[in-house]
Amino acid sequence: MEFTPEQFMARALELAHDALSLQEVPVGAVVVHEGSIIASAFNRRETDCKPTAHAEILAIEAASQSLGAWRLERTQLYVTLEPCLMCWGAIIQSRIPEIYFGATDPKAGVCGSVLNLHEKPLFNHYPRVTGGLLAKECGQILSDFFANLRNQKKTLAMGNKNL
Amino acid sequence: MEFTPEQFMARALELAHDALSLQEVPVGAVVVHEGSIIASAFNRRETDCKPTAHAEILAIEAASQSLGAWRLERTQLYVTLEPCLMCWGAIIQSRIPEIYFGATDPKAGVCGSVLNLHEKPLFNHYPRVTGGLLAKECGQILSDFFANLRNQKKTLAMGNKNL
Repeated sequence: MEFTPEQFMARALELAHDALSLQEVPVGAVVVHEGSIIASAFNRRETDCKPTAHAEILAIEAASQSLGAWRLERTQLYVTLEPCLMCWGAIIQSRIPEIYFGATDPKAGVCGSVLNLHEKPLFNHYPRVTGGLLAKECGQILSDFFANLRNQKKTLAMGNKNL
Repeated sequence: MEFTPEQFMARALELAHDALSLQEVPVGAVVVHEGSIIASAFNRRETDCKPTAHAEILAIEAASQSLGAWRLERTQLYVTLEPCLMCWGAIIQSRIPEIYFGATDPKAGVCGSVLNLHEKPLFNHYPRVTGGLLAKECGQILSDFFANLRNQKKTLAMGNKNL
């Protein structure tokens, strides 16, 4: 049975929910090789106290361990949010040829939002990018997370005012 | 006793020599906090089978563990080679305010070589960059490494031809 790109993104979205359960910014990612998921990860920056622990980085590292190679030449990466500079760089370093992302990131995304690095063959590797896969669902979980965070801060500020 | 930037870079260069002893591309890095080195690392991409195992990434991760924080706000990073896209992204993610690098990287450097990302306040953090520290020594070890690699390939090719 062959899976569709939407099905792989749906799995990445489940992983974003796992991040949410740890109160992490909810982003999930999977790496696919020959039609199967070989690595799954979600953002663990706070949990692991690690600025590099974005979903893509952890998924890329797990995929390299799984294949026993740092070159992930015949793989696809699915991630719920447009990659940031660091993650786009890691995608280039690992030679992943094909990327699918869900929601856009107006503040940090480099595949169409802040920068258009995916359109520039600047380096020794040039991945193909498809954005907008399950964009609504991938974006909604992030909007809800940040809205909730703002509410918590507001409640906290009001509490302090009443002290 | 206060150390100079050149002394911190000299330590990073020693780490590049450690990378060389493992036949890795010789790049070393240290993170400094309040005048002391809190993290040291060198490129281990082949050894660890990890596309993300550049010196900067490993040094940043070790510094976060050392300080118990993913924000490295009052630190300086010293690295023997101009950062690539991934490492520059990790520097931004970790909020390091000050970077010193040694040699330029005409193929992958993003602080003046392939891109000038250090001149653009595009993201939520904007580090200050000083390049060219011990540039000759930091570049020489890399030139020697790649010249040696080319010679090895040439010898191998000649050997195959004589089979």
